[in-house]
Amino acid sequence: MTPTASPRHLVHLGDLEQSELEDWIELSLSIKRSGAAPALPGRSLGMLFFRGSLRTRTSFEAAVNQLGGHAINMSAASDFWDLEAREGVVMDGRAPEHIRDAAAVLSSYVDALAIRPAPAGHSWELDRRDEGIHAWAMHARVPVINMESALWHPLQALADTMTMRESLGALAGRKLAIVWSHAPEPSSPAVVHSLLVAAARFGMNVSVAHPTGYELDGEVIRRAKNAAETSGGTVEFTSEREAAAKGAHVVYARSWRSIEHYGNTTLAASQRSRTAGWSVDEALMKLGEDARFMHAMPIRRNLEVTDEVLDGPRSLTLTQAENRLHSQKAVLTRLLGR
Amino acid sequence: MTPTASPRHLVHLGDLEQSELEDWIELSLSIKRSGAAPALPGRSLGMLFFRGSLRTRTSFEAAVNQLGGHAINMSAASDFWDLEAREGVVMDGRAPEHIRDAAAVLSSYVDALAIRPAPAGHSWELDRRDEGIHAWAMHARVPVINMESALWHPLQALADTMTMRESLGALAGRKLAIVWSHAPEPSSPAVVHSLLVAAARFGMNVSVAHPTGYELDGEVIRRAKNAAETSGGTVEFTSEREAAAKGAHVVYARSWRSIEHYGNTTLAASQRSRTAGWSVDEALMKLGEDARFMHAMPIRRNLEVTDEVLDGPRSLTLTQAENRLHSQKAVLTRLLGR
Amino acid sequence: MTPTASPRHLVHLGDLEQSELEDWIELSLSIKRSGAAPALPGRSLGMLFFRGSLRTRTSFEAAVNQLGGHAINMSAASDFWDLEAREGVVMDGRAPEHIRDAAAVLSSYVDALAIRPAPAGHSWELDRRDEGIHAWAMHARVPVINMESALWHPLQALADTMTMRESLGALAGRKLAIVWSHAPEPSSPAVVHSLLVAAARFGMNVSVAHPTGYELDGEVIRRAKNAAETSGGTVEFTSEREAAAKGAHVVYARSWRSIEHYGNTTLAASQRSRTAGWSVDEALMKLGEDARFMHAMPIRRNLEVTDEVLDGPRSLTLTQAENRLHSQKAVLTRLLGR
Repeated sequence: MTPTASPRHLVHLGDLEQSELEDWIELSLSIKRSGAAPALPGRSLGMLFFRGSLRTRTSFEAAVNQLGGHAINMSAASDFWDLEAREGVVMDGRAPEHIRDAAAVLSSYVDALAIRPAPAGHSWELDRRDEGIHAWAMHARVPVINMESALWHPLQALADTMTMRESLGALAGRKLAIVWSHAPEPSSPAVVHSLLVAAARFGMNVSVAHPTGYELDGEVIRRAKNAAETSGGTVEFTSEREAAAKGAHVVYARSWRSIEHYGNTTLAASQRSRTAGWSVDEALMKLGEDARFMHAMPIRRNLEVTDEVLDGPRSLTLTQAENRLHSQKAVLTRLLGR
Repeated sequence: MTPTASPRHLVHLGDLEQSELEDWIELSLSIKRSGAAPALPGRSLGMLFFRGSLRTRTSFEAAVNQLGGHAINMSAASDFWDLEAREGVVMDGRAPEHIRDAAAVLSSYVDALAIRPAPAGHSWELDRRDEGIHAWAMHARVPVINMESALWHPLQALADTMTMRESLGALAGRKLAIVWSHAPEPSSPAVVHSLLVAAARFGMNVSVAHPTGYELDGEVIRRAKNAAETSGGTVEFTSEREAAAKGAHVVYARSWRSIEHYGNTTLAASQRSRTAGWSVDEALMKLGEDARFMHAMPIRRNLEVTDEVLDGPRSLTLTQAENRLHSQKAVLTRLLGR
Repeated sequence: MTPTASPRHLVHLGDLEQSELEDWIELSLSIKRSGAAPALPGRSLGMLFFRGSLRTRTSFEAAVNQLGGHAINMSAASDFWDLEAREGVVMDGRAPEHIRDAAAVLSSYVDALAIRPAPAGHSWELDRRDEGIHAWAMHARVPVINMESALWHPLQALADTMTMRESLGALAGRKLAIVWSHAPEPSSPAVVHSLLVAAARFGMNVSVAHPTGYELDGEVIRRAKNAAETSGGTVEFTSEREAAAKGAHVVYARSWRSIEHYGNTTLAASQRSRTAGWSVDEALMKLGEDARFMHAMPIRRNLEVTDEVLDGPRSLTLTQAENRLHSQKAVLTRLLGR
């Protein structure tokens, strides 16, 4: 109820200095080991979902509650309406309200806003601007937390980095293989974008394998390469899954949609039909260096990865998911804690 | 859990004596200045939305929580089903349950019920009876709070009156211009109905400007005129926006649908197409007496009002919205407080 | 957050020994009389609704809150997505996630999971396996509570048994008439299945009346008859409503869909059109022995039962509904209490 003059947002990991990022990861690990201080008595978080969610929704509401605060959850599917993001337009279209007004109003009711926008999905050039989440951050008078936009998913990357730290210790010099996987309804590249930059910042050697036509966003790649130069890590791309997995300490599978055919459902489906082999199995895992398997979920079993790998002893997927709870407590404590 | 024999409801402002209405406004202002006593420990509010909501939903849940209580939110869009309001009918239609039963059952789970009905929108004669909200009030054994029916929106009028008191001091003799505004999907006249009666009760001189065919409900107008006679205020209607705005201390914009063509989408759209000039800009505001701009939101920017007015120093729209939180705390404290 | 190695579930009443069942009923009655100890501080319950709910949702969330815990509510209609229940399949269909993974993940966020599955409704042979709720119970590391599957509704049966105990005292030897009722959209037989078994376990003489073609599940009938043999009760079936009601201490009405024509909408509707007389009125009630009227709601008034009976002094329907709150507090206390 007492909005900071200039609130601290978490739109992407670029909002954090490296020292802060390390501090947040350490706090996440400490919270997992020893529990969290009840940092949010009398504080409330407004969560707005413009797309569905299972893990993010549940882990965030549980985190807020376990810290002594209160979460108000709203779903655009059932609770409210389209919001306009563009500045200065005559609002005679579908959206009856502007994010500018919604953000200002909600800032007087809650202490932070967590937003999952729904990118339109027609044009990557448009969606990659993340206008929705930026409009919330610009107009809210309380911290805004990105719960996955078109371009970024910082909360997942925090949990993933925490999970790798927990499992591997120091990350510098470790090899992370990010392997594209086949799925009927691929996700946005947001999870991989945030992971790529985070791993590069921690000095990992990242090898991304994907079929031709599934290149990641160019600006994100530049950021990751810049981060790797500073940290001593490396970032490389290949169209051979085996090349990426070879010597990897972590094999991270993810299905993301083609930016090349973004918005063109027919072409994208035709392109995808040629990628059925892109799946993770024991043979691929054995190329790694005692490699762990990671995936941000939801997982299409026996399509993206075999049950054998997923339910095997080297799978970290459930740990990743659990770590969402702990790392989000760290985020809430740092952004809102008293 | 201990329902009062005869619970106190808030269906419209007519449920409050003038002294009570003044007390509630004063309490709202006091809560804003000094905070609210935690009046709701162990109390719970059931909120049922048969239509979407952003401000009402969030501000009510935040208010309940900040007072130490708990809100249970349900949306008819995703959580439950149609309810029958008519007495004595054979229920062989769409609704599998009667409000009579739902109200009695929910009364044994929560300490108050806040309801936003969804008027059918076919016939004003039918919708204006507000059968839904009255059925809840008749059959609930706990207080029922109207979160906007076809005819009334008492919570908005409380926040609006509080906002005018805060900004203008004593209201008697001040001029309020209510100006119809153009929008593709106009709202019900509920906000304006409740505001009109409230302003009249406080002795304001209310001038309502709207295009021909957008007359408010006749019975509501009679109530407002009666209230004005008692209070020394006035209520007048004009089809000239400039006449209403002239000398006004507040210009209140709102788009409401035509009662004349209520339920006839084609005629209503055709009628609306002739009203494109009905918008608030600086030129109109300058006719007032250092006039403030008000709007209950959601606002269609640059259609109902220019960005210049809305984001300018005389706009009270965000204050109105924030005051929903404070005034609803006053409502909850008076209806449920321990 | 500290899942038991082998969590205790409540999928159906068969999960409880008779002594436990009696203990839970006694605790429910005690909680109603004297209030409940705040057994859930810092505990959270995840509720997943794959179908709508009014009573279950509200009474469960209120129960958790009144015991000092926190409920996280999710609706598949607006919040998340289809989940796969079958083991080992290649997940290239609609469901992007497996219950196995969702259950494991949510187990690390909350202390118990309450699930209302949505049976597909095409084949009774398939739906009666209750694969969804069993998959949750198999893969969750926290207690799973069934909020009504195709086959069972244990929470309703607990409240119903509590209500009969409260109203009739000892149940052994009392006659319960379960009478099928006519409705346009009949429910599953789950409520009646659980009630039948519970009443038989308590030694009641149960007479089920339904039109030909509405036979209950054969395996459920066998369970009920076995229970009656142990308890000294009886279970019989008739196609004459009057025969069932004669001498009954309780007349329990319920509309359930035909298992014979399950999934065949046209045949089911045609079959149902021949059952219009199946309704409860005063004439039927008078055949009982000072009989009480019960119904699990939602109720189609003047179709399933006349207003006269439903609103009369012998109706226990509102007590049943209120007892959902008390008996669910007993369930939560026994499964999760500290």
